[in-house]
Amino acid sequence: MKKSKIKDSVKLLEKLNIEMFGKDFLLTWEKSDDDILATLETAEILKNLYENNISCKVYESGLGISIFKDNSTRTRFSFASAINLLGLALMDLDEGKSQIAHGETVRETANMVSFLSEVIGIRHDMYIGEGNSYMREVGAALDDGYKNGVLHQRPTIVNLQCDIDHPTQTMADLCWLKKYFGGLENLKGRKIAMTWAYSPSYGKPLSVPQGIIGLMTRMGMEVELAYPEGYDLLPETIEVAKKNAEKSGGKFKISNSMQEAFKNADIVYPKSWAPFKVMEERVKLLKNNDDAGLKALEKKCLENNAKYKNWECTEDLMKLTKDGKALYMHCLPADITGVSCKAGEVAASVFERYRLDTYKEASYKPFVIAAMILLAKFEDAPKLLGDLLKDGGKRINF
Amino acid sequence: MKKSKIKDSVKLLEKLNIEMFGKDFLLTWEKSDDDILATLETAEILKNLYENNISCKVYESGLGISIFKDNSTRTRFSFASAINLLGLALMDLDEGKSQIAHGETVRETANMVSFLSEVIGIRHDMYIGEGNSYMREVGAALDDGYKNGVLHQRPTIVNLQCDIDHPTQTMADLCWLKKYFGGLENLKGRKIAMTWAYSPSYGKPLSVPQGIIGLMTRMGMEVELAYPEGYDLLPETIEVAKKNAEKSGGKFKISNSMQEAFKNADIVYPKSWAPFKVMEERVKLLKNNDDAGLKALEKKCLENNAKYKNWECTEDLMKLTKDGKALYMHCLPADITGVSCKAGEVAASVFERYRLDTYKEASYKPFVIAAMILLAKFEDAPKLLGDLLKDGGKRINF
Amino acid sequence: MKKSKIKDSVKLLEKLNIEMFGKDFLLTWEKSDDDILATLETAEILKNLYENNISCKVYESGLGISIFKDNSTRTRFSFASAINLLGLALMDLDEGKSQIAHGETVRETANMVSFLSEVIGIRHDMYIGEGNSYMREVGAALDDGYKNGVLHQRPTIVNLQCDIDHPTQTMADLCWLKKYFGGLENLKGRKIAMTWAYSPSYGKPLSVPQGIIGLMTRMGMEVELAYPEGYDLLPETIEVAKKNAEKSGGKFKISNSMQEAFKNADIVYPKSWAPFKVMEERVKLLKNNDDAGLKALEKKCLENNAKYKNWECTEDLMKLTKDGKALYMHCLPADITGVSCKAGEVAASVFERYRLDTYKEASYKPFVIAAMILLAKFEDAPKLLGDLLKDGGKRINF
Repeated sequence: MKKSKIKDSVKLLEKLNIEMFGKDFLLTWEKSDDDILATLETAEILKNLYENNISCKVYESGLGISIFKDNSTRTRFSFASAINLLGLALMDLDEGKSQIAHGETVRETANMVSFLSEVIGIRHDMYIGEGNSYMREVGAALDDGYKNGVLHQRPTIVNLQCDIDHPTQTMADLCWLKKYFGGLENLKGRKIAMTWAYSPSYGKPLSVPQGIIGLMTRMGMEVELAYPEGYDLLPETIEVAKKNAEKSGGKFKISNSMQEAFKNADIVYPKSWAPFKVMEERVKLLKNNDDAGLKALEKKCLENNAKYKNWECTEDLMKLTKDGKALYMHCLPADITGVSCKAGEVAASVFERYRLDTYKEASYKPFVIAAMILLAKFEDAPKLLGDLLKDGGKRINF
Repeated sequence: MKKSKIKDSVKLLEKLNIEMFGKDFLLTWEKSDDDILATLETAEILKNLYENNISCKVYESGLGISIFKDNSTRTRFSFASAINLLGLALMDLDEGKSQIAHGETVRETANMVSFLSEVIGIRHDMYIGEGNSYMREVGAALDDGYKNGVLHQRPTIVNLQCDIDHPTQTMADLCWLKKYFGGLENLKGRKIAMTWAYSPSYGKPLSVPQGIIGLMTRMGMEVELAYPEGYDLLPETIEVAKKNAEKSGGKFKISNSMQEAFKNADIVYPKSWAPFKVMEERVKLLKNNDDAGLKALEKKCLENNAKYKNWECTEDLMKLTKDGKALYMHCLPADITGVSCKAGEVAASVFERYRLDTYKEASYKPFVIAAMILLAKFEDAPKLLGDLLKDGGKRINF
Repeated sequence: MKKSKIKDSVKLLEKLNIEMFGKDFLLTWEKSDDDILATLETAEILKNLYENNISCKVYESGLGISIFKDNSTRTRFSFASAINLLGLALMDLDEGKSQIAHGETVRETANMVSFLSEVIGIRHDMYIGEGNSYMREVGAALDDGYKNGVLHQRPTIVNLQCDIDHPTQTMADLCWLKKYFGGLENLKGRKIAMTWAYSPSYGKPLSVPQGIIGLMTRMGMEVELAYPEGYDLLPETIEVAKKNAEKSGGKFKISNSMQEAFKNADIVYPKSWAPFKVMEERVKLLKNNDDAGLKALEKKCLENNAKYKNWECTEDLMKLTKDGKALYMHCLPADITGVSCKAGEVAASVFERYRLDTYKEASYKPFVIAAMILLAKFEDAPKLLGDLLKDGGKRINF
């Protein structure tokens, strides 16, 4: 992208009524339409500044903290990349090495790590009913510390995946769709099939499908959610999707047929997840350290999953989509039949055809995270971005 | 704080006879009174520069190394924050991932990690007789490497808690007392009760009480140390406290009564620790991998602790203090009765009343560590700080 | 070194036909003689810039990724130091904390961590036939991602030790020899004894001896490789050494006698390694999780090793070398008899006499790594280095 185009993007940004300053990014549906647009636009501007070798370093010092209560590769590296781009240094709160087991309160830890911190990224997705609440608990503790003069600045919280939503993923997905279809306006009326898919594992978070139906319904899209009986999502996220579709002039439909969902779809997003009732049961067992119970649950779930091995994104299914050419999406890593497992979410030939597309989809995540931070930390982000472009300090000094 | 005030602080610093350049910070009582004052003042200047958005980045590159032989949250993050503030990058020497188990000497490791390093922060507090010695062994190795042309610069060592002292904690405590009482001169004659308190755990380091009695006795304070029979500190630290009190015109007293200590105190610091004789025994058992012995020792100690459950900082005890309003201090995390444990060091209502105060107490630590580094690495620190203020480079570039 | 000397070094560099831009550094014998010279010279320039307090920060942001599939202290810290010197932030790909176990392909992971990365340092030395191949697989994935617009830049790969070569070690060794003997031209005709030595451990990589014979034979040296029967190196590396010696006018000889090798040597490099056939067997057992097999193999190998306890670098052996004063080298940590083990690779008195020399040898590694990165990432490295010198930005800003 040429620099003049970046300028146009900044002008677009200036016209939005952005209300993100001083606020955490926890659920996309807590953000206004303008906030969503601003995040997409800012991510794109940052990506373009980067690609034009313009430094986006707005901090000379400061920490960015990550708290991962579940494994992660791409989100971990995306967060690290995002804060590094802005000039912050990563500090991972590794609970194994801390004194937190000791009975320390969330309230206390949140303050203790934040004296010179600007952002806290949190992944907490394994416990239904707890991940997002934990982020809010941290947020309240930071508010308290900031208000009472303990903290000189209030670090902003970025949800790196919780039990409810996965906003850095879905916003990156949306960046990619915007790019792929040549603008958000071109998403209107398009059909996206967010479907369950078979996987030989269990206990996968629900945040991606929940986040996708919550976000894409705002774009005037026809969102069809499909899953085998029993694999329900959190009821509250279904409500969000319904309301959003209504408001945006889009559609939201639930079915129990992958074929039905794929029919005439412009986009398909087949992905495994665990039923939320299983996740609830699992939380109880985990808390009781009930290993036998956990094993029994796993066995039961895997057996149940196995009934739906035909929920695989095959070439035949792809043929049902719009001109047989729907865009395949995935948050990665996908369970690819014959590659990463015997039978999985997607046929190898389908995945391979869209492999580079899924990589490009992922490539937006660092910039989405950086955008979320920037918009939360700087009241006049459009001016800041304009200044970065004008000053043109080089990222690579040569 | 206004910038003009920072200027005054720098002027104050200029008048001190600082002898910290090129020296490690291992024990507060190895530092002169002017060194202590300089550290406090520098910490305050750095805090104020930070709060005025003035960058304190004096390094464009260089590593700051941390070696934690015990868990840590706040010290870990404080050290990370401190070195980041000065422009260094953190590199943790995680012994599990290194080849050190392999029989490598401390002398060798110290040099191998230091080719481009400016500071090494070390926590080594679990082994009586070993932590501080280890730091000196590292220091000697660095001296040797530097003298012989292996190292281009001599990294400075900061004691992040050893078996004897916890200087970054006690100096942060002193910063906080200075702030709370409006100046060091206002500490003269005030009574501080450093007392043991009950905890349902055992094996807590002795470095905080030892460090507190060693440092506060220099401020002309009346320091009263109280603990149940058998919970003695290292005899050498008692000697230090006695001498310091004598020299400063303060007082130092030991009793076996929490009531006695709290009576008319301006400040109380109730905190659990293990008797040093237990710690010595434990070291032997640890070295022999004597699991049965360790379990037996733990059982015995916990039983012994349990005899002193009444050593809890309750509301009733607080009423004995000066006007019932002594400042409660703690290095955190505290064992709070009914919050982090069934019965602990402090009543929940007392802790809650002083909670934000303890957070503020902790907030000085990053700046204290940065001050220790700065004064060890730069011969004319007052000029450097003055220049930072004058040049006024922004930390947040917008 | 004075700045005028650095200028001379840069001029020297300008005259070389450097072909490293855009290429990974995987094996020294894939690099031209001019590439080797350029790496040595650039490393020295960077070291001298550093020692003259001139900042070498060419990046304002960007990640440097490390992937360690084996333990490491010095290489880990050297890599961290190198990328920090250039302005990059370290991000370790810790496979335990990632989703990689999940069946994710190397191709995918390589792209996922590289969106804002400039370099990937990899240690993968435990599996004969796999380490170097893995690096090439990562490289091919990056090429693919870069070519197809997934990545905006192609991170360069630096081999931090594989099953075949250990180029950052051997190049640092060569820097040290150049310094020690006052120039590469003074290495011509000198005898270096690369010999096996006894160690009470088994399974040590072969990369150092293989790398040493592959590199030093290019310097016109007389390289003698000596090991007990059965401790063969990879046949392909023997071929490389033979060809290199022939081309450079040096010599390459293999014997089964440590005495023979030490006789009249200018340099000795006694170091333990495992026979490659054992390593091959071990790989199979590891892959089958055959614990019993592994234990049996270890037992057999240690017993076999024990037959050669007399392969120790003793004072008597040292007397056989040129004037009894050959330079002793080691990649560290060495197994020192009576220090790190009962009986090992080298006598304590020999090691102690050369200890500081081995530390200096190691001190070149951070600069060698930084040189490899710089030459791969910047097409006109001589100009860049000249500019750094001219602009003279300070590393320590005071």
